[in-house]
Amino acid sequence: MFATRIGNRKDRELRPVTLERAVMKNAAGSCLVKCGDTHVLCSATIEERVGSWRKGSGKGWLTAEYAMLPASTAKRTPRETKGRKGRSQEIERLIGRSLRNVCDLSNMGGEVTMTIDCDVLQADGGTRTASITGAWVAAYDAFEAWKAAGKVKVNPLFGQVAAVSVGLVDGRLLLDLDYREDSSAEIDMNVVMNAKGEFVEVQGTGEQVPFSRARLNDMLDMAEEGIGRLLTLQRQVLGLE
Amino acid sequence: MFATRIGNRKDRELRPVTLERAVMKNAAGSCLVKCGDTHVLCSATIEERVGSWRKGSGKGWLTAEYAMLPASTAKRTPRETKGRKGRSQEIERLIGRSLRNVCDLSNMGGEVTMTIDCDVLQADGGTRTASITGAWVAAYDAFEAWKAAGKVKVNPLFGQVAAVSVGLVDGRLLLDLDYREDSSAEIDMNVVMNAKGEFVEVQGTGEQVPFSRARLNDMLDMAEEGIGRLLTLQRQVLGLE
Amino acid sequence: MFATRIGNRKDRELRPVTLERAVMKNAAGSCLVKCGDTHVLCSATIEERVGSWRKGSGKGWLTAEYAMLPASTAKRTPRETKGRKGRSQEIERLIGRSLRNVCDLSNMGGEVTMTIDCDVLQADGGTRTASITGAWVAAYDAFEAWKAAGKVKVNPLFGQVAAVSVGLVDGRLLLDLDYREDSSAEIDMNVVMNAKGEFVEVQGTGEQVPFSRARLNDMLDMAEEGIGRLLTLQRQVLGLE
Amino acid sequence: MFATRIGNRKDRELRPVTLERAVMKNAAGSCLVKCGDTHVLCSATIEERVGSWRKGSGKGWLTAEYAMLPASTAKRTPRETKGRKGRSQEIERLIGRSLRNVCDLSNMGGEVTMTIDCDVLQADGGTRTASITGAWVAAYDAFEAWKAAGKVKVNPLFGQVAAVSVGLVDGRLLLDLDYREDSSAEIDMNVVMNAKGEFVEVQGTGEQVPFSRARLNDMLDMAEEGIGRLLTLQRQVLGLE
Amino acid sequence: MFATRIGNRKDRELRPVTLERAVMKNAAGSCLVKCGDTHVLCSATIEERVGSWRKGSGKGWLTAEYAMLPASTAKRTPRETKGRKGRSQEIERLIGRSLRNVCDLSNMGGEVTMTIDCDVLQADGGTRTASITGAWVAAYDAFEAWKAAGKVKVNPLFGQVAAVSVGLVDGRLLLDLDYREDSSAEIDMNVVMNAKGEFVEVQGTGEQVPFSRARLNDMLDMAEEGIGRLLTLQRQVLGLE
Amino acid sequence: MFATRIGNRKDRELRPVTLERAVMKNAAGSCLVKCGDTHVLCSATIEERVGSWRKGSGKGWLTAEYAMLPASTAKRTPRETKGRKGRSQEIERLIGRSLRNVCDLSNMGGEVTMTIDCDVLQADGGTRTASITGAWVAAYDAFEAWKAAGKVKVNPLFGQVAAVSVGLVDGRLLLDLDYREDSSAEIDMNVVMNAKGEFVEVQGTGEQVPFSRARLNDMLDMAEEGIGRLLTLQRQVLGLE
Repeated sequence: MFATRIGNRKDRELRPVTLERAVMKNAAGSCLVKCGDTHVLCSATIEERVGSWRKGSGKGWLTAEYAMLPASTAKRTPRETKGRKGRSQEIERLIGRSLRNVCDLSNMGGEVTMTIDCDVLQADGGTRTASITGAWVAAYDAFEAWKAAGKVKVNPLFGQVAAVSVGLVDGRLLLDLDYREDSSAEIDMNVVMNAKGEFVEVQGTGEQVPFSRARLNDMLDMAEEGIGRLLTLQRQVLGLE
Repeated sequence: MFATRIGNRKDRELRPVTLERAVMKNAAGSCLVKCGDTHVLCSATIEERVGSWRKGSGKGWLTAEYAMLPASTAKRTPRETKGRKGRSQEIERLIGRSLRNVCDLSNMGGEVTMTIDCDVLQADGGTRTASITGAWVAAYDAFEAWKAAGKVKVNPLFGQVAAVSVGLVDGRLLLDLDYREDSSAEIDMNVVMNAKGEFVEVQGTGEQVPFSRARLNDMLDMAEEGIGRLLTLQRQVLGLE
Repeated sequence: MFATRIGNRKDRELRPVTLERAVMKNAAGSCLVKCGDTHVLCSATIEERVGSWRKGSGKGWLTAEYAMLPASTAKRTPRETKGRKGRSQEIERLIGRSLRNVCDLSNMGGEVTMTIDCDVLQADGGTRTASITGAWVAAYDAFEAWKAAGKVKVNPLFGQVAAVSVGLVDGRLLLDLDYREDSSAEIDMNVVMNAKGEFVEVQGTGEQVPFSRARLNDMLDMAEEGIGRLLTLQRQVLGLE
Repeated sequence: MFATRIGNRKDRELRPVTLERAVMKNAAGSCLVKCGDTHVLCSATIEERVGSWRKGSGKGWLTAEYAMLPASTAKRTPRETKGRKGRSQEIERLIGRSLRNVCDLSNMGGEVTMTIDCDVLQADGGTRTASITGAWVAAYDAFEAWKAAGKVKVNPLFGQVAAVSVGLVDGRLLLDLDYREDSSAEIDMNVVMNAKGEFVEVQGTGEQVPFSRARLNDMLDMAEEGIGRLLTLQRQVLGLE
Repeated sequence: MFATRIGNRKDRELRPVTLERAVMKNAAGSCLVKCGDTHVLCSATIEERVGSWRKGSGKGWLTAEYAMLPASTAKRTPRETKGRKGRSQEIERLIGRSLRNVCDLSNMGGEVTMTIDCDVLQADGGTRTASITGAWVAAYDAFEAWKAAGKVKVNPLFGQVAAVSVGLVDGRLLLDLDYREDSSAEIDMNVVMNAKGEFVEVQGTGEQVPFSRARLNDMLDMAEEGIGRLLTLQRQVLGLE
Repeated sequence: MFATRIGNRKDRELRPVTLERAVMKNAAGSCLVKCGDTHVLCSATIEERVGSWRKGSGKGWLTAEYAMLPASTAKRTPRETKGRKGRSQEIERLIGRSLRNVCDLSNMGGEVTMTIDCDVLQADGGTRTASITGAWVAAYDAFEAWKAAGKVKVNPLFGQVAAVSVGLVDGRLLLDLDYREDSSAEIDMNVVMNAKGEFVEVQGTGEQVPFSRARLNDMLDMAEEGIGRLLTLQRQVLGLE
C-alpha cells in the first residue's frame, strides 16, 4: 500500500526531530517538540499545593494534561469543553506515569505539584510519544529553575525517559508511524524507555491482527533503537552531553 | 512483605475462577465471572443501530462500558454521574479493542452494535482482566442467540480472548494479583491473548521501577500459562470442549 | 387483557420473594432482594463524615442511591453519567425517607453517614418497593457490624419498614405488579409501612383514571396484607423471629 | 409550638388565594397564583413538536418545568445551572402527571407539546400544590387560545385539578401549611383532586412519625374540603361559573 | 420599514417606564422594572461570605446573575440547566461592573457579597439595560436595610447608574429599541451612565454596518438624554428628590 | 506608579507586532500574532455545514472560539473542560461579530461555516484585540484557499478589521496595554475598526472611574492611530500593499 514512506524514510528511521526549549515565557520549563509534522508544545508548571489525598505526606506529585488544538487535525477536532474524552485521559495518565518513573517525588521540595501540559499544535501521528519526549525536557528545565530558586538541592529527575511508536503496516515493521501509517497499522505499539535501556511502559495493541512473541521482540528492538536516538537528543539540547 | 499469598496460592497460580452463564434474564448474553473475590457481571446487548460515523458502512460495531458498584470497594466509590473517570474509560476501551480483535464486524448481521457492560460487584484486583475473560463468554452467548434468531449464520466471534495480570511484588513475580498485591506492585502488566497463543494486547507499566527485556519475557511466560487455563475454562462452560 | 397473572398468581398474592444477606464482601451490610424477576442488590456503607449542612449537629444521616444496570431492562438503559434522571432521584429520596423514619439519627455513633446503594440487576416492575424492603435488611446488618465494632450500643433502627405496590389493571386490583401489569395500570400505588401497621409513605397516582376514597381504602388493605408478609420474611432471614 | 397560625388562620382554613390570569404577554396562557406569601408564575406554551419517543403516534404531550427564583427564599437559593436537583424534578413530574390526568392527549391538535413553566417568585410553603392549581388555569387559557386559532375544536382539558397540602404539626392537623409549619411538620401530605371529588394523586409522608389509617382519612377529609374551594375559585376566575 | 414606532413613539422617546419597589418579600431589596413590554424582576441579596479569592481582604463584592423565564419570549426559551450561555454571562458581567462602579466595596460592612438577580419575566428588547436601571434601585434598598440593621453607617452606593440602548434602524437613530427594532438594527449601542453625566460603560456594535465618529457622538447624545430621565425616575421612586 | 513603560514605550506606541502566516499545516489559514509578549495562534477552518437554525438559508456563517493554554499565564490557568467561562465566551462573541462585519456571508460558497480558533500561547494583556487582528489574516488566507479550490469566485472578506486597547493608567492615557498596565487601569477600552476609519466595535469600561465625552474622544483618537498601523501591517504580510 505504502511502498514508499513520506520523505523516503527507511523502515527503522525516525522522522526529523527537534526539541526547542524555553518557548513559553510564563512556564517554568517548556519545550516545543517536533517529530516531522507532529508538533507538541510541552510546558511544566510547579504549584505549591497537592491534592487533598496527598496532604500531610510531605511528598510532591507530578501529573499531566493533554489536549489537541482544534485545527491541529485535518478535520477540525472540537474542544473538550463538556468533559474529557477517554483517549485524552488515557494519554495524560500515560505521560504522568512515565515521568513519575524517573522523578523522586519525595524530594520535590515538599508538597508541590508539577503539571505538564502537552498541547498538540499539529497532529501527524505519534502525539503521545512525542509528548513524553518533550515533557521530559520541559520538566527538567522547570526543576532546574526550581533548584535555582533554592526550593530543591538536586533536580528531582534522577533519570531520563523518551518514547516512540512502532507498528506493523502492510506486513512491514515501521518505526515512528505518521498518521497515514498509523491509521492503517495492523499492530500498534508505544514504548517508553529510560537511558539504561529499561522499559518504563510497553503498550502493544493488535488493532487488526494478534502478534507472536517473536514479533513483539522485533518491535521492541526497533523501538529501543529509536528511543536511544531521542535520549541522546534530549541530552544534547540540555547541554548534558 | 507478603511471605504468603492469600489462600496459600503459589506464585504461578490463578485464584479460583468461575464463569456463570445466563445470570441476567433481560440480556442476550451474560456471565458472572469470579476470580477470587473479584466479581464482575458482564452482559452483552445487541441493538440494531450504529453510531453516525459508521452509518452506511454495512458493518457492525462492538463496544464496552465498565463501572464499579459503589460498595464494590472497601472504601465506598462514588458513582460517575457527572462525567466518567479516565480510568474507567481506559478500561472500557481496552475491553472493546480486545473483543473486536476476535470479532468479524463485517458479519454481525448488518449495522448493529453489541454493547458489553462490565459492572464490578466486588473488587479485589484484576477487574479489567476478569472483565475481558467474562465479556467474551457473554458476547459468545449473545451472538448464539442472535444466530438462533436468524440474524447471522455464523457466530461472528472467530476466536477466543482471555486476560490476566502479572506483577512484580517485593521482587517476586506473581500471577493474577489481588488488590493487596496490586497496590504494592513494582511492575504491573496486563496481558490479553487468543487461543493460538498470540498476544492481542500487552500493557506493561513500571509503577515503581523499570524493567528489562528478560523480565518482560518472564512476565509474558507467566501470563501465557495463566491465560491458557482461562481459555480452557471458557470453552468448558460453553460446552465447546 | 391479562386474564391470568404470570405463574398463575392470585390477585392478592406476592411474587416469590427471597432476601439473601451478606452478598458483598466489602459492604458493611448487604442484601440481594428478589421479587420474582425483579432483583435488586442493596448495600449499606457507613462513613464517618456528614454533609457540611449537618456538621456540628452531633447527629448522623442516612441517604440512598438508586441505579439500574444497563442490561437490567429488556431494552438497554443508558448509564446516567451526565446527570441523574428525575425518576432515579425521586426513588432514592423515597428510599432515604422511608429508612430514616425508623432510624434514630441522634444515636448513630456521632456524625456518620449511612449510604444505601440500591442497584437493580434485573427489572420486572416494583424496583422501588423491593429496594426499600431489601435496604432495611442491609441497613440492619451494617448497623449490627457497627455495634460489634463498638461504635453504638444499640442498633439505631428502632423499627422495621417494608414496601409493596398495588394497582388497578383492567379494572382489577392487583398486589405487587410486575412490569407487564405496571405498564398498563390505570392506578398505581406504592405503600411503605412499619411493623405496627402504620403508614410511612403512601403514594397513589391515577395514571389513567382518578380514584375514589373507597378504592383508595381497598388498595391500602391489599398493600397492608402484602407488607405484613414481607415484614415477617425480613425478621426470619435476620433470625429475629 | 405554634399556638396561633399566622393571620389567625383556623386549622381548616386556606391562606388567602388569588389566581390572576394573562400576566405574561408572550405565553399562550399564564396565571400568577398567590397562596398567602407563596407566589408562583405559571405559563403554558404550546409547540408543534413532540419528543422522538412519541413521533408518529399522532398524539400530543403535556409536560411541566419547575424552578425557584434565587431570591424567592429567605436564604438565597442558587440557580440549577449545572444539572437539576432531585426535588425540582420530582415536583415537575407531579405537576405533569396531575395535568395529564385531565387532558385528552389524543385531541390536542396532533403531535404538539404543551410545556407548563412554574416559576416560584416567592416561597412560603406549598409551592408544588400552588403550582398545580395555577398550572391548570394557565393550561386552560392556552388551550382556549389554541381553539380560537382553529387548532382544536374542543379544549382538551376535560376536567379540573387543584391541589393542597395537609400536615400534622405539633399534634394538630392543619390545612395548607406555610413554610414555618411545613418545616416542623411530623406528617406531610399533598393531595391532588378533580372536580368530581376523586383523587388524582395522594402523597403522604411520615416525616417524623408514621400514621394510621384513621389519621390518613382525617387528612384526606381536610384536603378535600380545601381543594373544593380552590376548584370553585378556578371556575370563577375563568368565568365558568 | 418601520415608518411608525409602536405606540407612536418619537425617535428620541423612551417607552413608558415604571420602577416598582419591594415586590419580593424575602429579598433585602427588589424592584420590578417595566420598560414597555420588557419586564425584569431585580432582587438584591446580601450574604456574609466572599469568594475564596477575596478572603482576608476585608472588602465586599457585588455580583449579578441574569436569566430569562422560558415563557418570557415569543418562542419558548429553554432553561440553562446544563451550563450558562455566553450571552447570559456577558450580560451579568456588564450588570456587575456597572453597579460596582458606584459602590464602595471597602465599606460594605466587611467581607460580604451582594448578589443581584435579574430575572426577565417578559422580553421585548433592552433587557440588559432595564436590568441595570432596576438593579440599582434593588441594591439601594437592600443597602438601606443593611444600614438599618447596623451593618454599615452609610449606604455603600455613592452614585447612581442607569442604562439605555440606542440603535440605527433603517437608517434612523432610535432611542430605547424594542425587540422588533433591535432585531433589524444596523448598529446597536448600550450605554451606562452615572448622575454626573459620565459614562460607566459604552458598548457600540456595528451589527450590519460600521459607524463613524460623528454617528457615535449622535448616539451618545441620544443615550445621555434618555438616561437622564431614568436617573430622575430612580430618585423619584426612592423619594430622594 | 509606572513612570516608564516596559521597553521605554511611548504612551501612543504599540508593542512590537508581528503577524506570521501559514504556521499550521492542517488549517486552511493560520496566523501567529505577537504583540510584545502576547502571542495568539489563530487558525481558520471551513466546514461544509451550518447550524440547524441556518439550514436552508443558502448562506454561510463565521464563528470564533477562544481559549488560553494553561501555561500562557504566570499562574497556571485551568482548562475549561467542565463548561466555558463567561469571559471566554464574551471574547469569542466579540471576535465573531468583528469578522462578520467585513464578511459577505451570502457569498461564502453556500451553507458553510468558518471557525476561527484563537488559542493564546502566551498572555500579557490585549489577547482579545490581538486575536481579532490575527484572526483576520487567518480568515483571509483560508478564504484565498477556498477561492483557489473553486468554492468562491471572490474572497468573501470585503474589508479589513484590526483592534487595539486603550486605557487610563495612573491618570495617563496609554495605547496597547500590557498585563501590568491593564491590571491597574482605571478605564479600559477595546476598539475594533475597519480600513475606512470606521468603528466596528467600541467597548469602553470605567473599571474604577467613569469617563467624560472628551476623554472618550481622546481614547478613540489614540486607538484609531494604533489600528491604522495594524491595518497596514496586515496588508503588508499579505502582500496587498
